[in-house]
This record gives sequence, structure tokens and C-alpha cells, in this order.
Amino acid sequence: MSSVFHGPVAPTPQAIGTLWPLPANTVRLAPDGLLGGWQARNTEATLPHCVARLDTYGNLDNLRRVTGDSDADYRGYWFADTDVHKSLEAAFWSGTAGEFAAETAALLEKAQDPDGYLVTYYQDPDKRDRQWNELHFSHEMYTAGHLIQAAVAAARSAPGDAVAQQVVSVARRFADLLILRYGDSRETDGHPEVETALAELYRVTGHRPYLDLAARFLDNRGHGTLGPGRFGAAYYQDHQPLREVDEVSGHVVRQLYLLAGAVDVAVETRDEALLAKTEQLWDSALDSRTYLTGGQGSRHRDEAYGDAYELPPDRAYAETCAAIASFQLAWRLLLATGKVKYADEMERVLHNAIAASTAADGKAFFYSTPLQRRTGHDSGDENAPGHRLDWYECACCPPNLARLMASLHTYAATGDDSGLQLHLYGAGTFASSGFGVDVRTRYPWDEQVTVTVTDTPAEPWTLSLRVPAWCSDVRLTVNGTPAPARTQDGYLRLHRIWHPGDEVVLTLAMPARLVAAHPRVDAVRGAAALMRGPIVYCLEHADMPAGGTLFEDYELDPASPAAVAFHSTGLFPVTLRVRVRARAPENRPLYRDLRSGGSTAATTTVTAVPYFLSANREPGPMRVWIPLTAQEDQPSP
Amino acid sequence: MSSVFHGPVAPTPQAIGTLWPLPANTVRLAPDGLLGGWQARNTEATLPHCVARLDTYGNLDNLRRVTGDSDADYRGYWFADTDVHKSLEAAFWSGTAGEFAAETAALLEKAQDPDGYLVTYYQDPDKRDRQWNELHFSHEMYTAGHLIQAAVAAARSAPGDAVAQQVVSVARRFADLLILRYGDSRETDGHPEVETALAELYRVTGHRPYLDLAARFLDNRGHGTLGPGRFGAAYYQDHQPLREVDEVSGHVVRQLYLLAGAVDVAVETRDEALLAKTEQLWDSALDSRTYLTGGQGSRHRDEAYGDAYELPPDRAYAETCAAIASFQLAWRLLLATGKVKYADEMERVLHNAIAASTAADGKAFFYSTPLQRRTGHDSGDENAPGHRLDWYECACCPPNLARLMASLHTYAATGDDSGLQLHLYGAGTFASSGFGVDVRTRYPWDEQVTVTVTDTPAEPWTLSLRVPAWCSDVRLTVNGTPAPARTQDGYLRLHRIWHPGDEVVLTLAMPARLVAAHPRVDAVRGAAALMRGPIVYCLEHADMPAGGTLFEDYELDPASPAAVAFHSTGLFPVTLRVRVRARAPENRPLYRDLRSGGSTAATTTVTAVPYFLSANREPGPMRVWIPLTAQEDQPSP
Repeated sequence: MSSVFHGPVAPTPQAIGTLWPLPANTVRLAPDGLLGGWQARNTEATLPHCVARLDTYGNLDNLRRVTGDSDADYRGYWFADTDVHKSLEAAFWSGTAGEFAAETAALLEKAQDPDGYLVTYYQDPDKRDRQWNELHFSHEMYTAGHLIQAAVAAARSAPGDAVAQQVVSVARRFADLLILRYGDSRETDGHPEVETALAELYRVTGHRPYLDLAARFLDNRGHGTLGPGRFGAAYYQDHQPLREVDEVSGHVVRQLYLLAGAVDVAVETRDEALLAKTEQLWDSALDSRTYLTGGQGSRHRDEAYGDAYELPPDRAYAETCAAIASFQLAWRLLLATGKVKYADEMERVLHNAIAASTAADGKAFFYSTPLQRRTGHDSGDENAPGHRLDWYECACCPPNLARLMASLHTYAATGDDSGLQLHLYGAGTFASSGFGVDVRTRYPWDEQVTVTVTDTPAEPWTLSLRVPAWCSDVRLTVNGTPAPARTQDGYLRLHRIWHPGDEVVLTLAMPARLVAAHPRVDAVRGAAALMRGPIVYCLEHADMPAGGTLFEDYELDPASPAAVAFHSTGLFPVTLRVRVRARAPENRPLYRDLRSGGSTAATTTVTAVPYFLSANREPGPMRVWIPLTAQEDQPSP
Repeated sequence: MSSVFHGPVAPTPQAIGTLWPLPANTVRLAPDGLLGGWQARNTEATLPHCVARLDTYGNLDNLRRVTGDSDADYRGYWFADTDVHKSLEAAFWSGTAGEFAAETAALLEKAQDPDGYLVTYYQDPDKRDRQWNELHFSHEMYTAGHLIQAAVAAARSAPGDAVAQQVVSVARRFADLLILRYGDSRETDGHPEVETALAELYRVTGHRPYLDLAARFLDNRGHGTLGPGRFGAAYYQDHQPLREVDEVSGHVVRQLYLLAGAVDVAVETRDEALLAKTEQLWDSALDSRTYLTGGQGSRHRDEAYGDAYELPPDRAYAETCAAIASFQLAWRLLLATGKVKYADEMERVLHNAIAASTAADGKAFFYSTPLQRRTGHDSGDENAPGHRLDWYECACCPPNLARLMASLHTYAATGDDSGLQLHLYGAGTFASSGFGVDVRTRYPWDEQVTVTVTDTPAEPWTLSLRVPAWCSDVRLTVNGTPAPARTQDGYLRLHRIWHPGDEVVLTLAMPARLVAAHPRVDAVRGAAALMRGPIVYCLEHADMPAGGTLFEDYELDPASPAAVAFHSTGLFPVTLRVRVRARAPENRPLYRDLRSGGSTAATTTVTAVPYFLSANREPGPMRVWIPLTAQEDQPSP
């Protein structure tokens, strides 16, 4: 057996940690499961699509301009290099580095300045005097961070490989330049990202100054050195020192990347107070600023959180990168603390907000994942399109998806001294030194997860199975015999001497559920959402009856029986069937006296489909939150 | 008697028109009425405040840079000249032109290029080559438009005055340059405004090429000549020819200014089809894209309308300039058609969205007038502050308010061949050739409006009194005798021989009302708003009981008796008292099963205050739409 290697986030043995990640090459997702299917689609469709777009959108030419191999104009945003870096990272995690990686690594090396600088936008002769002079705006360290993360993937996944070593060398030269310039500085970058990258580079190299610089950048924030800019200092996460902040705010992706870096630094420096602060901020996001889909970010204007409970479904910004960042942060907190809530959130955001961003064919994407699109939606810009786009001017999301999906197998299970923990249920094999299980399931479409022990030490150990917070009816058999399904801190913990072939069947009952939001969420008052298991459902135009009723005029009758689930084949493995009432078309004024009379309506049964699979048919309106028939509008008995 | 002159919008005798404006100097608002009080405050506080800010924020220095009288850097937005022009217009309408106008007129004349060009941003030597080369962005014609409107005010209000003539000359030179450059062009400006200005300049001068150019600019729109920009062509009102558009969209102020220009051109060219199109578009705004306050614009990102029924109260952009533009458009349509709905909307938007923009002292302003501010509101930028600001980097709104308020008296009444029409009820005197009435009222605080005839021809004529759509109980006496209050097209029309001293008392009953929105307005489902007469009310932090209940946890019990009005003195002439229930503080999760149990709650009586007078006490949360206690949360009897 070749030596094991880790995926993204591999704390050192000295770090604070409750759980440890399984080696990336001892876990595998089966392509016929949902998670493995996503990963396979990523390798086969999304990543090649991204690589192709790097050519057609000029990202690689931007590098070639610097090396003198292209005379094309610079194209894209000033941080367009990061699309290359993220795609490169994805290629390494997916084990498909090959020609793209070799060419790109050579190009990066050739484009890099002698001092290690490598941001092609600012390597333009006209812009060199702006290097390091507009940190609030420049994304220079953000760009360095993504380069470093590609190098981390290269170092871990292909340790002896010459191309991988080339990428690592380039990234280290840039990281060393950062240390030279900023090792004693009070400055920081407008877009956090480099912190987590530097901490990971420390983990790969053991070179402590990388970690120290990450810690310094954290401490440099919150002193207003970046100025207020157009949207205030919180946009840059520079409004208050992180250790003094009580709630998440500002630009969501920047906030979450910053917190990911803070967890990495906290665990490696054994800073319990900083770790507790990241947990507090995570709670503040989850308690009042997270969509039912796990998406975060309510404001388009400054890509920001907005106020507590400000969660409009139609104007949800819910950027795909924010969902990815939320997943990455939750994973770090899960490793650090072992708390089930972090795994629950990973499941939710992965199966809804993140999954919704990619089209069924893996080649089109949502930048923003709103929970409602109205009839006649004004999709004037790429942040609120009516359908997934092939690519984006600001293409941060597609390659970010690619790198996440390429490493998805590493997030499903963990180990600790007691044994093995399964957090995300996907068909596949999960092993660590001496332990091994095989998981078969059609989860989340089916309720059953079958875990077969394939490899075991002689001593007793604990197999821990997460019981999701949404599940109120869990059953268990061990080798065919019903066993008590008592959870402990959110996990079923089966401690025993295991034998190869032992089979555990976990059944997580998945009745359709009607969900309401906290009454302070004004935007969805008087509405309910449909869920089944971890999956959020929605109504979509294509499933509504033909006829004159506007999509927006369907209401859920709360007195009707709950929804029923139907299994089928095709795009939607499980649909829900619900009774709705169609408000009679009428010309009500926009505002009227509260008691000016209700409407009569006919009821009908319609199909609700998984939110993440919506927008794969003809474009049209969609909604997660379905209005409940108002009391005053219900016909007299 | 000196010769009469008109206010803003004075169609020629050849124009399509149903009503005509009364001369500006034969109408007067009494300063002890609400409208007259606003106008007096504008003259005494707001306009001097604006003029002072033009100095401190560099707008006048921008002109002095061009004349060589200042070496300060250019300050503010590229259209900062328009703040000067709007203040100048306000000064002329208010009859307080004086020294500010004299100095400014001289400065404008001196700063103007020999060819007539006058946009100080682009008169910088470094930027001259950009003149006319970035029309999507430059606001050059927009700036010309506001200069022209200042000149129109000067010409009408001070026809023999040398300063006024100087302003007119400067504006005409710029307008003539526009004709020279664009008389045969297919181009147009990114920000509509010059259309209505040119039509008005035609009205003042009789010079037909100004009107022709306005008409040309209208026709030049909608062919994509401005490009998509960042927010799509609708942002520039360039997505479709105006005559083919079916719904308002894009940047709200640009849409409404464009429609104002379209009405002006339509009536002057007797283009019935174009006029009908403007009415259709007005309907589309009012039917699905207007706040209860009359504000328009749901999106911060691109200052745009958004989708039909997308009307979030918290993120209402509802720009003050959009409310002003809506008022100006409605006035034009009222003159053209005589339809009461336009006067109703003028009343609503004036008394709510527009009035709310200015602090009680007249010296602080809201750029955006949302209908909700939450506890802990994240007021990170000047578009969503928690309180009115003294001035703005983008200061379009304050001087726009000043010019509207300075001419407010001209919008209250009209004349036609039949007699006199009263549309907005404010204490004052309203006269035209041979007719005259005196209006005494504390409307909208009091229900009674007393109209006394002061001047009358011998022949019978019709006094028309608007009955607002919100009023379902109207009473009338003529010389103390009850008279039938039959409305005709929304007006009480009293046709008779009048004698000086004849007294009509109109009583418009104003019970407190609970208002609901169309069920398609998702953002305020399950909530009601309080109104009395034309005034929208709100709950404000300062009036809530002391104690631990979060502002957001108060609900209106729909079973409770309707609100009761109290008259008082001080900031709020009339408050409403309503029963609310305070949800017990609890730690509900953000999402929960729909039927997981309601909350117990105590009821209490609180005060609601007029929305437009909110934010004049200590900063804190506010809301217009108050949640109704949900059926499932009502305690069992």
C-alpha cells in the first residue's frame, strides 16, 4: 500500500483536535451514490469545463502576457488568476492533474517575478507601481492564498511528482515574499483567504513562519487600516478585531474565509479563546443569518449578511462561494470540537445551497442561489439570472465548486482514538489504519444506510453514526438484530469487537415535513417550506397545472394532509405531492383594507421537487417558501 | 397686479391637456398648514442648508476650479454640478434667489466653455478628451437638464431680472450645443432628465428645436447604443424603445424622469399614443411596484424596480429622488388627463415617502426611505443609515427636495374651463383669473377642509374637490347646509353661481385603518399596516414599553379593536393607539416544524406614529408592517 495522504485541512498532531480526517486515499465515494455521483460528474464534466473556460476567458493568456507568450489584453477581474489556481487545486485533488497541471505549473513558474510576486494583473508594466499599494482592493494576498492552496493539494496528493513540486516551489516563493514584506507589518488584505492557506502551507512544510504570518494577519484586522471603502470597514472584515466581534457581518465570503483561517490558526497555536470566538460567530450566523438551504448572505449590493433575521428568499444573495466557505468552516469546527451541529450543517449546505449551484450536466452554474424566482423575473445581471450560466465574468464559484467536489470524499468520515465516525452518508468505502467500512445507501433518497465492516483490529472500537437533527425516528439493526438507537451527542455510538462482514443498518425515517421560520424572519411569514430528510423542496413552474393561475397564486392549505413522497426515476429520484389552493385570479389592488374579504379557490395536487435539482427544465418561476392560506381567506365551512 | 407666472410644468396652449396649472404667484400655502409648513421650513432651513453644503462639499469650488478661482481638487461625483443647479432652481422658485443666485449665475457663465459646454468634471484638462465619449456613464445631458430646469425657474419666476437672464443665457448656450451635437444623432444619455428639461425650455422660449431634440432623445432610447454596462441596458432605460415597453423596469429615477419627459413631449406634440404609453407604464408601477408610502424601487444594488410584487420593507430602496420623480410624473399626468388617481398618488407619495425624507428641523435627510429598520440594523453605508444624514456623498436628494418644496404651492390646485379643482388639501389661497378661494384646514390631522370663495365671476362655475380613494365617508355642507356628497370621477363637483364669502365645508372621515397588501407581496404576508387618512403610521422603538421584549417580537392581534386616534401637540399631531401582543422571549431555532407549538404572550397598548415623522427621536428600530398574530400562535380560548 502506498503511503497515505490527506485532503484539505490536515491539522498537525500538536493541534487542538477532537476528530482527525481520514487519509484522502483510503476513502472513496461510489459513483452510484449521490455524493459520489457529484464527484464523478465533477471529474468528468465540471473540471474539464473550467479548464476549457480558463482558455476562452483569457485567464491563462493573462499568465502568457507576463511570460511574453501572448499579446492579448488582460481579461477579467484583477483576481482572475485565482480561477487558474482553484482549477489547479481541483485537478490535484481529483487525481487528474496531467497535462493541464504540467502546462500551468510551467506557466506559473515562468510568470513569477524574481522576488516571488505573481499576480498577473499587477505585473502589467502600467500597474507595477500599484503593487501592494491598494490592499483593500487588490486581492493580492487572496490570489497568493489560492496559489498556496493549489500547492497544498499538489504536495499532499502527489508528493513525489515533479509538477507538484514545481507548484509548491512557486507558491512558497510567493509565501516567502509575503513573510519578507509583511512579517513585521500591521497591514492585511481586503479579502481574507491567505490566512487559511498559510496555515495549511505550514502543515505541509512544517515551516512555522507561515503559521506566524497567518496569525499576524488575523491580528492585523479590525484596526481600520483598509479604510471604509464604499461599503464600510465590515466589508473588508476590518471593522473590529476578530476577537472582539460578537456577530458575523459584512461580505459573507470574506467573513467565512476569515473564520476558516482563524480556526486553523487557533487549533495550531492551541488558542482556545480564538477557537471559542469562531464558534460564537458560527452560532451567530446559524441562529439568525442562514437560509433554510444553508446559504448565507442576504444583500446583493455589498454581498453582505445584512441584519439578523433579514432573509429574503427572492433576493437571497446566498453566493455559491459562501456556501462552500460555510462547508469548509463547519468541517474545521467539526474536527476541532467533534460537535454534531457542524456535521449537520455540512449536510444541509452541501445538499441544498451547494448542490443547487450546478446544473444536472455539471456545466452551468448559479453564482447566487435564491429561494424564489418570480414570474417575469428581472434577471438583469449575472447575480440574479433566471437560469444557470455557462460561466461568469466573476467566475469565482465554478472552480471553487470543482475544488470542493474533487475533495468531497475527504469530508464524509473522520477518525479518533475510539474509532470511526460517519458524518455524511454517501455510498463508498471509508478506512483508516486498521479500520475499514463499506457504506451502501441511496441516501438521501432512501432512508437506509448499510454499513459493513471490511477491516478491523482485534480490539473493540466505536463506530459512530451521525443522527441528523432533522430526524426524529431512527432505527438500527446490527447483523439483522434490532439494537437500541440511543444517540449520544447526536451520534449513535456502537462500541464492540467488530468482525469483517458485520453489518449495521441505520434507518433514518424521512417523512415529508412542513417547516416554518422563526417569526422574526419577516420575509417568509405566513409561508411554509417542504423538506424530506436533509433535502429542501420547492415548487417549480414546470409542475404546475396548465391554466390561467399565476404561479404566485398557489397556496398551501395547512389543513390538508401532509405531503407524500414518491420515488421515481429520471431527474428527480424523489418528489413530494402536496395539496395547494389556487387563488382565483382577481384584480385586487396592491393595498386594501385588511378585512375586505377573501377569495374562493380550487384545490389541486401538485409535485414539489428537490430544490437543488430545480432550474434543470425550461426557465420559469420557482419557490421554496409556499404561502399558507391566510385565515381570513379560507372559505367558510 | 403684476403679471402672473407659472411653476414647474406649464404646457403651452397647444398641448394636450385637461387641467391647467394655476399661476405660481396667485397661489399661496399658509405656513400654519402642513404643506405650507413644509414649504416655510424649506425656505428657512433646508435651502440655506443646501447652499451652505455646496460650499463645504466643494460643488462651488468645482466651478471655481474651471474659472481659475480655486486650486482645490475636484470633489464629489461627476454630476456634482447638478446639486448647484437644483439649489439654484429651488432659490428661484422660493423667491429667495438673492446673493447665492447672483454669485452662482456669474460663476456658471464664467465657467462655461465658449461652445456652451458646462460640466466641471469633464472640463478638467485631463478629462476633456472624455467629453461626450462615455454617455452611458457621464451624466452630461443629465447635468445640462438640471441647468436648464434652473433656467426655466429663473425665466418664469423672475422674468425681468438680470441674474435670471444670465442663467437662461448659460442654459440656452448649453442646450444649443446639444442641438448642434445631437440634433441628427442616434445617441442619448445614460441618465434621462434632459428630455423634460428641454420640453420645458421650449415652453419658456417657444424655440421648437428644444422640443424636437427632447423627442429625438426619447426615440433614440431602447436601441442598446449605451451598451449593457454592469446592470443591463434597462439600468439606462435603453433596453427597448419606450413605445414598446410594457412595464417599468431598471433604475427607478431614470425610469420616472424619462416618463416625465415622455409626457411633456407627448402633450406638446399631441402624441396620444405616447401619452397612453406613459399612463400604461405608470399603472404598471402602481399596480405591483410601489410601496404603501408611495416610494418606488426595491433593489439597492442597481437602484432598480425589481420584479412585480418584490417589495421588501426592510430593503426598500425607495429613493427620495424616485418619490419626487413619481410626484412630478403624476402631476404631469393629472394635467394631461384630469384623472383623480394621479392626484391620489401625489397625496400619498408626498405625505409619506417624500415627507419622511426630511428631518423635523429640515436639515437632515434620508436618501432611501425603507419601511422597516430592525434592532441592531447594519447601517454600513449611506444608502441604509439608521438615521437621517446631514448630507450625502451622492447628494442628489436634498436639493431635489428643496426644489420640490419651493414649488409645492403650484401643485395643489388646477383650473379648467369649468372652474377650479382642489387636489391637495393645504391651508392657503388659490386663485386664477377671476376665481379665488381661501382654504382653511389642519388636514390631514383634522377631517375638515373649509373652502371660502374670495373672488368669483358672475357666471356659474364648478368648484371641484378631490375625494381621496382612501375615504369611504365624505360629508359636505355649503353655507352651513348639508349638501349631497356625490362624487364624479373622484371629485365632488359643485356647480353654481358663487358669491364671495360662500363657504364649503368638506369632511373626509379618517378612522384608523388596518391595511393588507396583495397576497403576491410575499415580503409583508401576515402583516398589516396602520393608516389614517393619507398618512401611513409605524411603530417606533421609542414608544414601546420598557422591558425585555425585542421590538421585532410585538404582533398586532387582528381580533383586537381597531386603533384609536389621539390628537396631541408636539412632534406628532395625531398618534394611533393599538393593542399588540408581545411574543414571550424564547430561543426558537431559526427553522422548526410548522406545528411545533405557539407562544404565550401578554397584550399591551402602544402608540403608533406617522411614518414620515419617525426617526426624529433616538435611533432605534421602526416598522410600518406589523406582524399579525399567526393562527397557530393564538392562545386557546
